[in-house]
Amino acid sequence: MKVLVLNCGSSSVKFELIETSPELMKKNEEHTLAKGMVDKLGEAYSRHVYNADGKTPLMENVPTETHEQAIRWFLNVLVDPLYGVISSIDEIQAVGHRMVHGGEEFSGSIIINEDVMDGLRRCSKLAPLHNPHNIKGYEITSKLLPGIPEVAVFDTAFHFHMPEYAYLYALPYELYIKHQLRRYGFHGTSHRYISHRASQLLDKPYKDLKIVTAHLGNGCSMAAVKNGKSVDTSMGFTPLEGLVMGTRCGDLDPAIVTFLLEEYRTPREVNLLMNKESGLSGISGISNDMRDLEREYEKKNKRAVLAIDIFCYRIKKYIGAYAAAMGGIDVLVFAGGIGENSPLVRERSCTGLEFMGIKLSPERNEGRGEKLVSADDSKVAVFVIQTKEELVIARDTADCILKKERAEKAASVKK
Amino acid sequence: MKVLVLNCGSSSVKFELIETSPELMKKNEEHTLAKGMVDKLGEAYSRHVYNADGKTPLMENVPTETHEQAIRWFLNVLVDPLYGVISSIDEIQAVGHRMVHGGEEFSGSIIINEDVMDGLRRCSKLAPLHNPHNIKGYEITSKLLPGIPEVAVFDTAFHFHMPEYAYLYALPYELYIKHQLRRYGFHGTSHRYISHRASQLLDKPYKDLKIVTAHLGNGCSMAAVKNGKSVDTSMGFTPLEGLVMGTRCGDLDPAIVTFLLEEYRTPREVNLLMNKESGLSGISGISNDMRDLEREYEKKNKRAVLAIDIFCYRIKKYIGAYAAAMGGIDVLVFAGGIGENSPLVRERSCTGLEFMGIKLSPERNEGRGEKLVSADDSKVAVFVIQTKEELVIARDTADCILKKERAEKAASVKK
Repeated sequence: MKVLVLNCGSSSVKFELIETSPELMKKNEEHTLAKGMVDKLGEAYSRHVYNADGKTPLMENVPTETHEQAIRWFLNVLVDPLYGVISSIDEIQAVGHRMVHGGEEFSGSIIINEDVMDGLRRCSKLAPLHNPHNIKGYEITSKLLPGIPEVAVFDTAFHFHMPEYAYLYALPYELYIKHQLRRYGFHGTSHRYISHRASQLLDKPYKDLKIVTAHLGNGCSMAAVKNGKSVDTSMGFTPLEGLVMGTRCGDLDPAIVTFLLEEYRTPREVNLLMNKESGLSGISGISNDMRDLEREYEKKNKRAVLAIDIFCYRIKKYIGAYAAAMGGIDVLVFAGGIGENSPLVRERSCTGLEFMGIKLSPERNEGRGEKLVSADDSKVAVFVIQTKEELVIARDTADCILKKERAEKAASVKK
Repeated sequence: MKVLVLNCGSSSVKFELIETSPELMKKNEEHTLAKGMVDKLGEAYSRHVYNADGKTPLMENVPTETHEQAIRWFLNVLVDPLYGVISSIDEIQAVGHRMVHGGEEFSGSIIINEDVMDGLRRCSKLAPLHNPHNIKGYEITSKLLPGIPEVAVFDTAFHFHMPEYAYLYALPYELYIKHQLRRYGFHGTSHRYISHRASQLLDKPYKDLKIVTAHLGNGCSMAAVKNGKSVDTSMGFTPLEGLVMGTRCGDLDPAIVTFLLEEYRTPREVNLLMNKESGLSGISGISNDMRDLEREYEKKNKRAVLAIDIFCYRIKKYIGAYAAAMGGIDVLVFAGGIGENSPLVRERSCTGLEFMGIKLSPERNEGRGEKLVSADDSKVAVFVIQTKEELVIARDTADCILKKERAEKAASVKK
C-alpha cells in the first residue's frame, strides 16, 4: 500500500511516500519512494526539497504562500516524468497525518471522519500552535485526493495510558477537570518505534521489558516504557517541560516564570524566552546545535562545556528517575539527531550509572548508525536507534485501513 | 554555652534556648533549656507557647503587634521566677539566627557584623518574603541583648558547593549573571544534620557515603549528599520547586504558569495558587495535612489516595534521579513530620526500588522515632531521623564564636 505521510507545521510541510503492508513489514521490505519538504511558507523564498530513490534530487527556492500550494507542488513532482515515482496520484492509496495533540480523546491512530474532525478541533485548544495546521493538512488532502482514506496519528497517543499519578500535576484538581491541565507527553510515535525496535534487536518480548527511551533531536524528551506501555515521559502539558533542548529550557522552578514576568512583562514574551532563547543556545550563547557545541567543547570553551554538562546531567537524572518509576531498567535507547550522532552526549549521560547496570563500550559508542553500544558485561542493553516516525505513521495508516476492511468484510459475511 | 536560637518569619517568631559546646556535643549532653513561639502576629489573638523542662508549660492567646514585643515576651518568660530557666538574660551567651537566603555570598555560618548585614540585605531581593524578617530579628536582639555575639545560619549554605551543572537552569546565561537566577536549595541545616546523623548511626565516615535525604514537613525537599557535600537538591531558585508539598505544587511544566496567567490574571494570583492552593491540598480537595489524608486513604477515598500516590511517586523519582546523580546510593534518610511519622509514605516511596538495593523491613518501618527501617539484606541503609535544625543553629553559633576566640588568642600570642 502506498501511503502519503504528511506533517503540516505552522510554516512548513513535510511529505513522505511510503510503500508498506503487513507482508512488507514482516519481510523488512517497506521503503520510502520519495520524500520532501517545503518550509519558510509565506516568506520571500520558500525552500523546496525533494528526494526519490534513483531520481535526480530537486532543490529550489521559490516563494510559496500556502500549505495547499506546497502540497500541490509535491503531488505534481510525484507524478513528474523526470522526478516522479508514480504515474498518477491515483496510486496513492491512503494519507497518514501527523497530529500533535490527541488530548484525552484519542488513545490511538484513527481513520478521519466528521466525528474525528470535531474531536481534533476540540484538542486544538491544547495545542493552538500545532493542531490547527495538522487539521489544515487534512482539509487540503481530502480536497485534492478525494475518496482516499486518511488517518490521524497522534504524538500523544503512546502516552495515553500513563497512570493517573504520573500524568497529574500537584495543582488544584479542578484545573484538571476544567482545563484538562495534565501531562500528555509528545514524540509518542518515536518513543513507540524505538522502544519496540530495541526489543527486536535484543530478541526479547516487548511486553517483558523495562525500557528508557531518549529522543534527542531539536525537541528532546524521554519516556519510561514498561511492558510495552509508556508509563511516564518528560514532556508535559506542552513540549516545553523536561530535558534541555536546542532553545527550550525544560524543567524550571515554576516561581521563576512569575519572577521573569516582572522583568519581561507579558506572558507571551516570557514564553518566547523559555521556548526560543533558552536551552543549549541560552546557556552557551553560541548555538542551539549540538554539533557546533561539540566543536567548541573540543576547544574547552567554558560555556559550551557547561551547556553539554547541563544537557547530559538532566538526561542522567531522568534515566535514574524512570528506572525508579519502573522498578528497574533492562534497556536504554538513544535516538534523534543528537542521540544518534553524539558519542559524547551518550557517554556523559551514562557515566556513573554502572551501579544500576549501565556500562557503555567506549569502542562501540564511537561512530554512528543503529547499534548496540553497551559493553558485553552491561546488565542494561544500550542501543542507538534511528527513529522512523514517518514509517510508524504509514504503518498505522495501513493498519487502520486494513482493520476497517476486515471489519466490513466480517459484517457483510454475517449478513 | 547558652545559645538563643531565633527563627523570625513574616508573622511568627520561634525561640529555643540551647545549652551546647564541643564537649557537650561529644558527650551527647546538649539540651534544650526552653523553647517557644509566638505566631499570628498582628492578628486579634496571637498564640504564645512556651515549654521548659520541669516547668509548667505556658499557652496564652493575647494580641501581639510586633516581632519585638514577641521577643521581649520570650525573654521575660525565660527569667520569670515561676516559668523561667535562667536568672538573668546575661546568661544568654550568644544568639543564632536562622537566615533563609545566603545567596551566592554566604557559604557557611558567620558572625554578624556591619559587612555581613550589607550582604544579608543584598540577599533579601532573592527571598523578599523571608530575609527581611530574619534581619529584623537580628536588629531587635542586638538592641535587647547588646554586646552578645550573634551568628547567621543559612538555609542555603549546605547547598552552596553544588556543581555549576546542577545549579544552573537552561535559561539564557545572562539571566544568571544579571539576576543570580539559579538553584539555591533550602532546608540546608536539616539536610546537613540528617545526612551526618545517618553516617553516625551507620558508624561509617560521612565523607565516604552517598546519601539521599528527604525532609518531608510542611515544606518538602530532597538532597543528594555525596562525600559530605550537597551536590543537588529539589528546591530551586525558590522553595516552590521539587516535591509535592502541603499546599505547594513543586515541579510543573513552566508553560503551565503562562497558561494559568490567562486564567488568573496577575502573577501574584498565580503565585498564590501554586504556593497556597496546590500540593496535597489541591489534589485531594481535603487537607494539606498528611495525617488527614492517611485517614481518608484508609477509607479508600479516591482523591486522598491520588494525593498520596502523586506525593510518593515524586519522591521515588527523586531517589532514582539523585542516585544517578551521585553514581550510587548507600543511605536513604526520611525526616520531617511526614518522613518521621508516616510508614505509609516511606513504604510507597520505596516500593519497587529493590533493583537499586533499597528494601524496607515492614516491621521496622512501622511506628515512629529515630531508627533503621531497612531490612538486614538491604544494600542501602534506610533511616528515619528526627531533624534538629535549631540544634544545628546553636552548634554553628557556638562554633563560630569559639573559632573567633581561638583566632584572637592566636593573634595576641603572635604579637
